[in-house]
Amino acid sequence: MTNTPTFAGSCPLPLSNQDHVTLAHGGGGRMMHTLLERVVLSAFGNQPLASRHDGAVLETGKGRIAFTTDSYVVHPLFFPGGDIGTLAVTGTVNDLAMCGARPLALSAGFILEEGLPIATLERVVASMARTAKAASVDIVTGDTKVVDRGKGDGIFVNTAGVGVIEHGLAIAPSSVRPGDAILLSGDVGRHGVAIMAVREGLQFESTIETDCAPLAAPVLALLAAGIEVHCLRDLTRGGLATSLIEIAESSRLHVDVDENAIAVEDNVSGACEILGLDPLYLANEGRFVAFVPAAQAEPALAILRGQAVSARAARIGAVSESPAALVTLKSRIGTKRILDMHSGEQLPRIC
Amino acid sequence: MTNTPTFAGSCPLPLSNQDHVTLAHGGGGRMMHTLLERVVLSAFGNQPLASRHDGAVLETGKGRIAFTTDSYVVHPLFFPGGDIGTLAVTGTVNDLAMCGARPLALSAGFILEEGLPIATLERVVASMARTAKAASVDIVTGDTKVVDRGKGDGIFVNTAGVGVIEHGLAIAPSSVRPGDAILLSGDVGRHGVAIMAVREGLQFESTIETDCAPLAAPVLALLAAGIEVHCLRDLTRGGLATSLIEIAESSRLHVDVDENAIAVEDNVSGACEILGLDPLYLANEGRFVAFVPAAQAEPALAILRGQAVSARAARIGAVSESPAALVTLKSRIGTKRILDMHSGEQLPRIC
Repeated sequence: MTNTPTFAGSCPLPLSNQDHVTLAHGGGGRMMHTLLERVVLSAFGNQPLASRHDGAVLETGKGRIAFTTDSYVVHPLFFPGGDIGTLAVTGTVNDLAMCGARPLALSAGFILEEGLPIATLERVVASMARTAKAASVDIVTGDTKVVDRGKGDGIFVNTAGVGVIEHGLAIAPSSVRPGDAILLSGDVGRHGVAIMAVREGLQFESTIETDCAPLAAPVLALLAAGIEVHCLRDLTRGGLATSLIEIAESSRLHVDVDENAIAVEDNVSGACEILGLDPLYLANEGRFVAFVPAAQAEPALAILRGQAVSARAARIGAVSESPAALVTLKSRIGTKRILDMHSGEQLPRIC
Repeated sequence: MTNTPTFAGSCPLPLSNQDHVTLAHGGGGRMMHTLLERVVLSAFGNQPLASRHDGAVLETGKGRIAFTTDSYVVHPLFFPGGDIGTLAVTGTVNDLAMCGARPLALSAGFILEEGLPIATLERVVASMARTAKAASVDIVTGDTKVVDRGKGDGIFVNTAGVGVIEHGLAIAPSSVRPGDAILLSGDVGRHGVAIMAVREGLQFESTIETDCAPLAAPVLALLAAGIEVHCLRDLTRGGLATSLIEIAESSRLHVDVDENAIAVEDNVSGACEILGLDPLYLANEGRFVAFVPAAQAEPALAILRGQAVSARAARIGAVSESPAALVTLKSRIGTKRILDMHSGEQLPRIC
C-alpha cells in the first residue's frame, strides 16, 4: 500500500516563538505551514513532504481512491453568491478533483452553537443539498454536535470526501517537470473580496460575488481527453501566489508567471486597492491551476474553455529548472519580482 | 450504485416547537433524532430510514468501502483514561468497524480557538498518533482552522474514516432476524461517568477511567471466523438503551434484554446513583453489541472473549417478532419494563 498522506500545506521552518495559537495560524501562510509541519505532521509520522497535496490517494487493494477533508468556519455564514453550505460542499469536491478523482460521496459534520435558529441550519443544509446535486455527489453520512452558547459561532461544518481515481497518472507536485505550462482556470480574488466586503459593510457599484463553484467537471474533461496532467491545485487560502509557492517548493523547480495573463475583475482590483489586499494572495473557491506538458497546453486550454466554470482559462506561465523552489512574477509593467509566502494571513475565517 | 446513506440516528417524529438549537439537540436522544430527520435527512434526499447505521457503505465499482465521520467537542479536553484525541481516532475507527470494515485511513480536521496553548494541541495530536498506531490506521489528510477567541472552545476535532469491506454480509439493522442472539462486548457506562466525574470534581475510591478503545480487532475476528454477523452498533451517545431502541425501531422487531447479564462496574453504579444517571443510557467509547444467529452465539462469544477489549463479552438478550419496534428489559429483580429513548440528553458534550 503506497498511500500518499497530506496535510494541507507544509514546509520545514522553525515554529515561531509564540506558544499560543493566533488567527494568523489559520491563514494559509508561512505560520500555518510551520505549525502543521512541527506539531501535526511530525506526530502523525507520515511522509508529508513527499506529497503536499489537497487530498490523500489511497490504494484499497482494488484500485485507488482519493480522500480529503476540510472544516469551514467562514464568517459571516452568508455572503454574496454563497454561504457556508455551498462552500463546504464545493471545497471538498474541489479537493477530490485536484487529486484527479471523480467525487463519489461526502460526509457532513455539524458543530452547532446552542441558540442557533433552526431556520439558519435549514438554509445551510438546503445549500449543501443543492450544491451536492449540482456536483453530482451524495452526502451519505454525517454527525451533529451541539456546544454551549459562546463556545462556538453559529455553525461550523466539516465535510470529508471520497473519490474514485480512474486514470493511471500521479497528479502531485512531484510530477511537475521543467517545461510544463501553467494554466489558470479563471479570474482570481473574488471569494476573498466578497467575504471582506460583507464583513466591512462595503458597497461597490456591482455586488462582488464569490467564485465558489465545483471544479470536478473541467478536471474530468482534461483527463477524459487524455491530457497528461502533472499537477492540479485549487487556489483557496493564500490564493494563487501561495499555491504556486507550495508547488515550487515541493517540486524544487522554478515557477515563472506573467501578471498580464492573470485575470482580475475591475471591481475586485478596485476593492483590493481600497482594502489594501493583493488579489494574488486572496482565497478563491472555484479556481485552479493545472500543470501540463507544454505540447498539450493548447488542447488543454480548449477543453477548459469549453466548461462554464473555466471558460476564461489562460496560460499564465511555465516551469523551469532553476532557480529552484522559487516563484517569479513578471509584473504588468514588465519588472520581475519574487513571490514569497505571507507570514500570517490577509483575511481570517474566509472559508 | 447502491450506496447506503446514514446520519447517526433518525426516526420520524414531529420537530419540537422550539425554533432554536438547544444542548438537548446534541444528546443522542429523541430531540436529536427528530432534528436530523426533519432538517438534515430530508434535505439531503437519501434513504436514511433504510439504514440508520454508524457509517455509509459505498460501492466504488471495484468493491465496497465504508465511510463515516464524527466531530468531537468533549469537555473537558482531558479526562481519566483519554482525551479528545484518543476519542476522535477511536470513535471513527469504531464506526468503520461497526460497518464490518477494516479501517484503511482517517482524516483529521482541527478547529482551534485563538489563544489555545500550542502545547495543548501537541498533547492532543500525540494522543491521536498513538491511538491511530494502536488501531493500525494512518491519519493521511487533514485541515486546520483558527477561530477568534470566544468563538470556539480550545479544540474541536473532526475525523472521517475510510475502511475496506472484505466480506459479503449486509451488516445493518435491516439484517436483524427474529431469533438472533444479542451479544454485549463488556461493561457499560464508564465513559459517561469518567467525563462527568471530572466535570463535577467528584472523587471516588478508585478513579473511573473511560472505556475508550478501538473495536476493529474483535469485529474482524468475528468476520474472519465466518460468524454471520447481522448487525453491529457501538454504544456511544445515548448508550446501550438508545442503540437497542434504534435497532428495534429500524428493524421493526422486538429486542428483549436481561439486566442481570449487563455488566456495570460497582464504582460506576455508585457514581450513577450519586449523579442520578442511568448506566444503560450513558455513552461508552469502547463497547458494542453484535446481533448474530442464535446457533452462532457461543462460538461468537468465545471469539470476543479471546480479544482484550471484549474479554467480558456476554449474551444479554434475543430478538423476536413482536411487539414490533420495542425494547424490553428484564430488571435485576425480575420485573419487565419498556426502554424508551430519552428526549434530550443526560450529559452534554460527552464526545
